[in-house]
Amino acid sequence: MNAPRPPRILDAWYVLAWSHEVRAEPLIRKLYGDPIVLFRSASGQVGALEDRCPHRGVPLSTGTVVGERLQCGYHGWEFSCAGRCEAVPSFLGEADHVGRRVPSYTVREQQGMVWVWGRPGAEPTTEPFDLEYADAPGYTVIREDVRANATVHAVAENALDVPHTAYLHGGLFRQATVRNRITAEVKRWHDHVECEYIGEPRPTGLVGRILSPSGGIVTHYDRFFLPSIIQVEYRIGDENHIMITAAGTPVDDYDTRLYAVVALKTRIPGFIIKALKPLGLKVFQQDAEILDRMTETTQHYGEEVYASTDVDLLGPHILKLMRRAAKGELGDPRDEPWTKSVEMDV
Amino acid sequence: MNAPRPPRILDAWYVLAWSHEVRAEPLIRKLYGDPIVLFRSASGQVGALEDRCPHRGVPLSTGTVVGERLQCGYHGWEFSCAGRCEAVPSFLGEADHVGRRVPSYTVREQQGMVWVWGRPGAEPTTEPFDLEYADAPGYTVIREDVRANATVHAVAENALDVPHTAYLHGGLFRQATVRNRITAEVKRWHDHVECEYIGEPRPTGLVGRILSPSGGIVTHYDRFFLPSIIQVEYRIGDENHIMITAAGTPVDDYDTRLYAVVALKTRIPGFIIKALKPLGLKVFQQDAEILDRMTETTQHYGEEVYASTDVDLLGPHILKLMRRAAKGELGDPRDEPWTKSVEMDV
Amino acid sequence: MNAPRPPRILDAWYVLAWSHEVRAEPLIRKLYGDPIVLFRSASGQVGALEDRCPHRGVPLSTGTVVGERLQCGYHGWEFSCAGRCEAVPSFLGEADHVGRRVPSYTVREQQGMVWVWGRPGAEPTTEPFDLEYADAPGYTVIREDVRANATVHAVAENALDVPHTAYLHGGLFRQATVRNRITAEVKRWHDHVECEYIGEPRPTGLVGRILSPSGGIVTHYDRFFLPSIIQVEYRIGDENHIMITAAGTPVDDYDTRLYAVVALKTRIPGFIIKALKPLGLKVFQQDAEILDRMTETTQHYGEEVYASTDVDLLGPHILKLMRRAAKGELGDPRDEPWTKSVEMDV
Repeated sequence: MNAPRPPRILDAWYVLAWSHEVRAEPLIRKLYGDPIVLFRSASGQVGALEDRCPHRGVPLSTGTVVGERLQCGYHGWEFSCAGRCEAVPSFLGEADHVGRRVPSYTVREQQGMVWVWGRPGAEPTTEPFDLEYADAPGYTVIREDVRANATVHAVAENALDVPHTAYLHGGLFRQATVRNRITAEVKRWHDHVECEYIGEPRPTGLVGRILSPSGGIVTHYDRFFLPSIIQVEYRIGDENHIMITAAGTPVDDYDTRLYAVVALKTRIPGFIIKALKPLGLKVFQQDAEILDRMTETTQHYGEEVYASTDVDLLGPHILKLMRRAAKGELGDPRDEPWTKSVEMDV
Repeated sequence: MNAPRPPRILDAWYVLAWSHEVRAEPLIRKLYGDPIVLFRSASGQVGALEDRCPHRGVPLSTGTVVGERLQCGYHGWEFSCAGRCEAVPSFLGEADHVGRRVPSYTVREQQGMVWVWGRPGAEPTTEPFDLEYADAPGYTVIREDVRANATVHAVAENALDVPHTAYLHGGLFRQATVRNRITAEVKRWHDHVECEYIGEPRPTGLVGRILSPSGGIVTHYDRFFLPSIIQVEYRIGDENHIMITAAGTPVDDYDTRLYAVVALKTRIPGFIIKALKPLGLKVFQQDAEILDRMTETTQHYGEEVYASTDVDLLGPHILKLMRRAAKGELGDPRDEPWTKSVEMDV
Repeated sequence: MNAPRPPRILDAWYVLAWSHEVRAEPLIRKLYGDPIVLFRSASGQVGALEDRCPHRGVPLSTGTVVGERLQCGYHGWEFSCAGRCEAVPSFLGEADHVGRRVPSYTVREQQGMVWVWGRPGAEPTTEPFDLEYADAPGYTVIREDVRANATVHAVAENALDVPHTAYLHGGLFRQATVRNRITAEVKRWHDHVECEYIGEPRPTGLVGRILSPSGGIVTHYDRFFLPSIIQVEYRIGDENHIMITAAGTPVDDYDTRLYAVVALKTRIPGFIIKALKPLGLKVFQQDAEILDRMTETTQHYGEEVYASTDVDLLGPHILKLMRRAAKGELGDPRDEPWTKSVEMDV
């Protein structure tokens, strides 16, 4: 197969792990298929190195942390978090040498997540995405990571797509038969795209009054930020606010892990929220299964073939932004956003 | 491996399923590696579509039949048996569009089998092979499908080859030690080849008299018809007639399914015929195992290397016919057949 | 992956089996990925043929030995140890034909091992490596074969490398903390390389006196001979002599089998020697695991990247000798050896 490879964006931040997962014990993670070893040094610093000892090519993840360094499991060579060779046992000469350095990734640890800059040895030009509300007072926060055998753009589109829910998840909640005419307002900036849904039905009757005494006006936004951040925001009245933000990590071209943070301020009781988590995971499981089948077909035919209509609100924009970014062709941040209004039945 | 690919003949009929296997529940079958979804609509029509939704590439076999249409399991797009897009849920515009059509295969359902024309979107230039005696009065008919990891021509040659039986199946019936000198008459026409065996021993003694009171003259023909039909015909006297016809389907280049129909008119009691079926399947199992090993070797070395002698009566002709057909170079039907007479020991 | 292939040396002897493994029952072995069938004829001769019948490509290892010949399991064609076609059942013509011969490997059986010359159909220009002491009086001999998923040169370097033992096998015997300064003298000839270790500590106290009443001078040599012979020699005084010779077989580019012969003359009691065998196999298991991980990484990145220091005493020379031999560029046997003296801590 000579499939045109999905867009790869190296100059950007990706989450490789939750903070609590990174300890002295080396942890192997992948980015675009390349193995990266993560470890926490004695002083608490997180190192992210290419998982290959320059000596004989053995994975450094076979080794152990010794103070501030990672020691290879084969001959005991030691490397700093910056990839510098600090020790070559038996050898009487100088350990450090240009040919004995390991490519290292810049690391940021914030909001409970370990981010790395996707291009090893490069200086980041931005900071990692700020997960608004991830640590805001009055919000309940749930963290979970999930994985699908599909490209970042397929996973992002799927997460932000409304029409499929009536079919793929039809048995679980939405009904394909009852339809509402709504308006979707799409705005695309140079590095992100947003869709606002206008006219979505709001909860009525007793549930509505309990949930939202203030009147229950619904606002709903779906957003995608380069390189791979997915965001869904719901407000029902002043009392209820749900903000789901997921950072997508391209483990490989067709393998995406989502690090999701759900921040909630709501009158819905905690035990109901808790009870909804298995439902959410079940929904994602259905998505992961269909995405897996989509990837199989794509790989059989050698390329992705997409035929879109107006109701594919965000997918084509996500792919356009990602393709541009992969070529280093970001638009001008000062430009007015591209906008479109779409009427549809949901 | 850059193996020269075995011949692929697209402009021809292939059996993809027995009729009873095709119901509303979508069925995935493959032809030369490409997945095809088969389904039966509410009115009973059989649809055969490329198993890929044009929208996002999800297999249509994930979906369900709704009336005369197959509905995709992801976003609910609906397609007719002819591959026309008939519905795009949520979308307020016209569903049908040239970019939203699915390649469809022409279907014929006859004699209990579902045939498709191998080139999607193309108009057939012939009709499927007629299985003589499959529905003839006075004949017992047995149907069975089997599969081997080998090319159509390797499977066809194996099925019609006599000399291997003494070795591969030696333990089961033929003896390598007792030999008869016979004559084989080979005739090759533009689209099929036939071999008549002259001088085969006939049943003698009591068995012969019971089986064939008329005298027991044996006639035995082996035949191959393009693209992949295998036929063995035996007559012993007027009373016994066995006609085995198998349609070969190239599931993939090295994966062949045989849809076999055995039509019998015989004095052999039914319970003996029934008892012979496990023996037949056991023989085929031995063939499938050796063909599998042959394919492994072929794929390791990257190409099929055949060294034939005169007693490879049909194999070289089958390959020649298939190679010609794959290039669209069929001979002239009006030409006299090529003939050859071979003496051999069996 | 378009990995530069590790060096392949065809014009050389390799062990394919222990003598006792080769019987009438055909045995499949591989050399550089190509399957070879080994069999022992009625008269005791060992045949080594390409494992592919020229007729239809079926592995000859499916067959059986009939007298001096191997008979294919499909159509019963028979081949001599030299690969000549001796019988084509059913066929009335002459069996032998240039297109019906099987490539055959020259075989030597000596010292309990079956060696083949790596290029089929070629006349050997040398004789197999003589395993000194394999049948010497007064020596105990242990034979064992082990396998690692790595190149011959990676396995050979690993077997002859000292510095890794403190790390990879640290838990088992050597300590990384106690260090001795020694001198290693490396000598490389046109077809082999040797390292002598000078200054290794000798057993002291009671153990030393029991083991080596003569005084306990330690000599230790590590050697590599083209194409793949590994040798470790230890002497402690006059009383103790250990000679480990292992012939490496490239089953495939990244799959090496070692046929090891350990010859011992020692005052160490036999029951202790016996007890050490599981320890030796455990050490090799650790080596095999790290080599396997090294191969995974090499194959992921597409090529071997090695950064050596002076204490990689033999590895770079082994690779240099093998690369030259693969190109047929052996040096002159009359040249003085290349030498180097290295101080190191072990």
